[in-house]
Amino acid sequence: MALPVLQKTEPRERLGLVVVITGNGKGKTTSALGMVLRAVGHGMRVCLIQFMKGDMYTGEIDAIPRLAPFVEFHMTGKGFCGIRANPYPFEEHRANAQDAIALAREKIVSGEFDMVVLDEINNALKLELVDLPQVLELLNLRPHLLHLVLTGRDAHPEVMERAHTVSEIREVKHAYRQGIEPQPGVDY
Amino acid sequence: MALPVLQKTEPRERLGLVVVITGNGKGKTTSALGMVLRAVGHGMRVCLIQFMKGDMYTGEIDAIPRLAPFVEFHMTGKGFCGIRANPYPFEEHRANAQDAIALAREKIVSGEFDMVVLDEINNALKLELVDLPQVLELLNLRPHLLHLVLTGRDAHPEVMERAHTVSEIREVKHAYRQGIEPQPGVDY
Repeated sequence: MALPVLQKTEPRERLGLVVVITGNGKGKTTSALGMVLRAVGHGMRVCLIQFMKGDMYTGEIDAIPRLAPFVEFHMTGKGFCGIRANPYPFEEHRANAQDAIALAREKIVSGEFDMVVLDEINNALKLELVDLPQVLELLNLRPHLLHLVLTGRDAHPEVMERAHTVSEIREVKHAYRQGIEPQPGVDY
Repeated sequence: MALPVLQKTEPRERLGLVVVITGNGKGKTTSALGMVLRAVGHGMRVCLIQFMKGDMYTGEIDAIPRLAPFVEFHMTGKGFCGIRANPYPFEEHRANAQDAIALAREKIVSGEFDMVVLDEINNALKLELVDLPQVLELLNLRPHLLHLVLTGRDAHPEVMERAHTVSEIREVKHAYRQGIEPQPGVDY
C-alpha cells in the first residue's frame, strides 16, 4: 500500500514533557515502551530504567537491542516488593531502588539523553523504596528539553501535579481474572 | 549494571488474546506500539494497521523498520475524520477504512502473524467508517493463537465484551490543555 504524502509537524517551541502513566490497568509499561520506540524514530537518545523488575524475562529485553545505539536499558531490582511469591526482604528492595534512583539522577543530568523513562517508579515510591523528595529532585533537575516518563500504579499527587500529561489506565477487564495465565507478547 | 538471573515463564497453555485499549487519555497507540516491540522480542511476527492516520508523520514510521523483518506496517486513511482541520469528505474516509478492514481480514486469516494491531479501529467504528458486524467478523475469524489488539476511543460494548483484556485510559491532564503544542517523541 503506497504511503500518502505525510505532513511533518514541528512545534514552534520544543519542550521536554513530564508524562505520568498510572492506574491499575494493563498498558503502563507498554505505553512507555511505545514512547521509547517513537522517540527512537525521531533519532532521540533514550535511557530506560526499570525499578523492581530484574527478576523476570520480558520481551523488551530482546527487542531493545534492535534500537541500538539509541536506547540504554537498565533493569534493576528483584521483582515486585511485597507480593507473595517474592522472596527478598524489604531492605534489599529498598537498597536496589536507591541504587536505581541514583542512576536515574546521573542519567537525567548527564545531557546524554532526550528521554528518560523510569518504569515502575510510582510504585516504588508508594512502597517506600524511594522517597518523595528524591523523586521531586529528579523533576527539579530535569533539563528543559528532556522528556521524563514515570510509570507505575498509585502515582503520588505531588508528582502528578508537577507533570504536563497524566494518564490513568483503568482495568475494565483482564485476562488473568478469567484464569488465563500471562501470555508472551502481550503480558510480558 | 549486571543483569540478575532472569526467570523465563511460559504459560501451560498458549493462547492468543484480544486486547482493547480505549479511553480519552494519552497512551493508546503508544501502548499498542509497546506490545509490538515486546512481541518482536519474543520473535513474533506482527502486522500493524493504522486507521485514519495516513496524513501525519509519527516517530513509529522511522522506528518500525528497525524491527524488520518481524513487523509489517500499514498506514491507511487520511487523518481523523470529522476534526476541523481535516479536509476530506466522510465518503473518502469510509472508503479508506473499508479498504483497511479488508486488509485486516486478509492479514488475520493469513496465518502469517502472531499479533495483529488495529490502531484506531474503535474510533473508526464509532465514526461509522466501518460497521460493527465487520469488526465482530474479525474477532470470529481470529486464529486461536493470534493476539488481536484494538485501539481507539469509544470502544463498542460488544467488542469489549468479546475481549480478554480491556484497559480504559483516562485523561487526568494533558499538556495541550496547558497550551503546549504536540512534542515529538511523546505526542507523535
